[in-house]
Amino acid sequence: MTQTADVSDLVGFTPYNIVELPLSVSTADEYLTIHWDNGQSSDFHYLWLRDNCTCAECVSTLTREQMFEICDVPLDIKAKSATITNQNRLSVQWDFESHQSLYHPGWLKAHCYSEEAREQRKILPKIWDKQLISQQLPVHAFSKIMQQDADLLTWLRDLRDYGITLVTAVDTTGSALKSVAERIAFIRETNFGTLFEVKAKPNANSTAYTTLRLPLHTDLPTRELQPGLQFLHCLVNDASGGESILVDGFKIAEHMRQHHPDDFKALSTLSMSFYNKDKDSDYRFKGPALVTDSSGAVVEVRLANFLRGPLDIPADQVTSLYSAYRRFMQLTREARFQYFHRLNAGDLLVFDNRRVLHARNAFDLKQGERHLQGCYVDRDELLSRIRVLERSCKLGE
Amino acid sequence: MTQTADVSDLVGFTPYNIVELPLSVSTADEYLTIHWDNGQSSDFHYLWLRDNCTCAECVSTLTREQMFEICDVPLDIKAKSATITNQNRLSVQWDFESHQSLYHPGWLKAHCYSEEAREQRKILPKIWDKQLISQQLPVHAFSKIMQQDADLLTWLRDLRDYGITLVTAVDTTGSALKSVAERIAFIRETNFGTLFEVKAKPNANSTAYTTLRLPLHTDLPTRELQPGLQFLHCLVNDASGGESILVDGFKIAEHMRQHHPDDFKALSTLSMSFYNKDKDSDYRFKGPALVTDSSGAVVEVRLANFLRGPLDIPADQVTSLYSAYRRFMQLTREARFQYFHRLNAGDLLVFDNRRVLHARNAFDLKQGERHLQGCYVDRDELLSRIRVLERSCKLGE
Repeated sequence: MTQTADVSDLVGFTPYNIVELPLSVSTADEYLTIHWDNGQSSDFHYLWLRDNCTCAECVSTLTREQMFEICDVPLDIKAKSATITNQNRLSVQWDFESHQSLYHPGWLKAHCYSEEAREQRKILPKIWDKQLISQQLPVHAFSKIMQQDADLLTWLRDLRDYGITLVTAVDTTGSALKSVAERIAFIRETNFGTLFEVKAKPNANSTAYTTLRLPLHTDLPTRELQPGLQFLHCLVNDASGGESILVDGFKIAEHMRQHHPDDFKALSTLSMSFYNKDKDSDYRFKGPALVTDSSGAVVEVRLANFLRGPLDIPADQVTSLYSAYRRFMQLTREARFQYFHRLNAGDLLVFDNRRVLHARNAFDLKQGERHLQGCYVDRDELLSRIRVLERSCKLGE
Repeated sequence: MTQTADVSDLVGFTPYNIVELPLSVSTADEYLTIHWDNGQSSDFHYLWLRDNCTCAECVSTLTREQMFEICDVPLDIKAKSATITNQNRLSVQWDFESHQSLYHPGWLKAHCYSEEAREQRKILPKIWDKQLISQQLPVHAFSKIMQQDADLLTWLRDLRDYGITLVTAVDTTGSALKSVAERIAFIRETNFGTLFEVKAKPNANSTAYTTLRLPLHTDLPTRELQPGLQFLHCLVNDASGGESILVDGFKIAEHMRQHHPDDFKALSTLSMSFYNKDKDSDYRFKGPALVTDSSGAVVEVRLANFLRGPLDIPADQVTSLYSAYRRFMQLTREARFQYFHRLNAGDLLVFDNRRVLHARNAFDLKQGERHLQGCYVDRDELLSRIRVLERSCKLGE
């Protein structure tokens, strides 16, 4: 059965639908078990439950932040009694300070931490190569994502999952780029400013600001947190050349893991050096080109040939890392991995800068001007906006 | 001997002094060895040297960024000859494409990657407890750090090493906080804005904006990159209570590593959950409370009781993590670790938000107002500014 959530008993702003009903609860030494009407069950530790009590004494009704501290109850706190109420809530009477807690069944099910439930909650990236992206490239119309929250949400989920999207018919006369970015949140400022103008400049402090070819790279690998989303809005493109090339770094990483495991290991464990020196700044960062999470999945790519500094790793690993880095760069040059696109005025490429490498061919200004405008928004802001938009979707379900 | 660097042959903006002279060079299969006049020697792999060639063909003279790509030469590239020139440069003639490279001896010595040289380059934090910080708290005068670059550099090195500093006599009438922060770089924007006003507000969306006690915490553990430096500038403090308490999280972590190794392991490997939900944002992050680097050193602390979400880890580890978290929080409450300070108007506390936990006691507005202004600047910007300031120091040496 599905029942619209009773928002009033929730601490946060996210509503929870009741999809399964709790039938009964049984208790063990360190945890209790809820038995759901679909035959599944969920274990919840007493400490975990006590920690997540949402009563007005434990959570500020003003800020919705927790006031209670879990170190103020005994480590072996237990339920004196645990029951399912007529309103399908889990009610727990604690054996310490006579405290009582009430839990919403939709919230409990959504936060079940069984191995199966945790696996189901994972959102996996849709990894692509030339063939896949040529069929599935997510294309969104500027007017729709600006006006409709449902379209905005679809676009942002595509960005999260594919790491690349093309927004079309973006106004080139005003401040459209800023407006699009601010549909998500504020813009991430860097030493290149908030909005940056990608065109050939007389005193270029970056290869981006010349007419030269840029090999496949992520932006600002010199920063501890590389910018999450990169926006590149084409205002004018009358120059010859300058085509954009994008490659899913996760695809190359998976290819390496499968076919060149030693190179994969080197790139995911040994630190590259990234330097960006200018008159008034001197950014440096050392870290692996492939960042993996605790499960071994690649969650980030960090690479820009023209922003590398001298390797600073143990001497006996220098050759391994060079060998692996060369392999990665050679793979990025293969057409089977590349999405190739010549930006037209009004096109806006938005991509995950910590996953998708981008490049451009050299261009020649004899035929006309080339002018892109760019900015960054971080991954935190993308995911936050998706969650907020999903709140109203859930309410409407 | 010390000789002022010849800046003209350097790619970057950092000058390198010649401290040791290269006496001779010998070659092996994969690397060459420079023998210095102090008896030391440095090995440099051919790939590494070729990669770091600074000639105008390899590095753009305009942007000072590398154009050459190391995957365009053979993996087994070798020096056909390697010599020390009359100007004490290392000169290498390559066995591929007749390329020739020249290296500055100061730059080579500074980038030697022998185990010993790498160890010597490490900058270790000065870890403190109540006793140490009561004697060594770095105090800096507002007027000095604003006017003198040498004082600015001393302040920033203190911030980097101690993770805490007090700036005194900061003007409370204008926009002094912004001016101080911008002595480093631009301010990091968050969903709380660029400058935030810490005072009791009617519709508080954070416990910070109430009169309530705040337990020891880092700010915004809900973000993938917690803000690096936190600035808290006291404009008015006529309320009773509201004293500030700061604790070096690295000290607590080291104490746990030594006395409670299982708790240390749990906190440094199991993910905590951090949630910050508001009407228009919904930030969440999962990660360990203690972040360690590849050598096992603690490099970051991430903790705020009032911003925690439900633990989402394997069921058989829930008790371990709660036990460890409780231990950590109990330790932060011990006076022997705490720096205690009542902020006066004009005081500006600046501290490493990813290392030093801060708290404040509840306050009562019957006696008068309490108003702090705050902002964040990231660690990348701090380190960049230190490097830029050190360039001119080196030139003056």
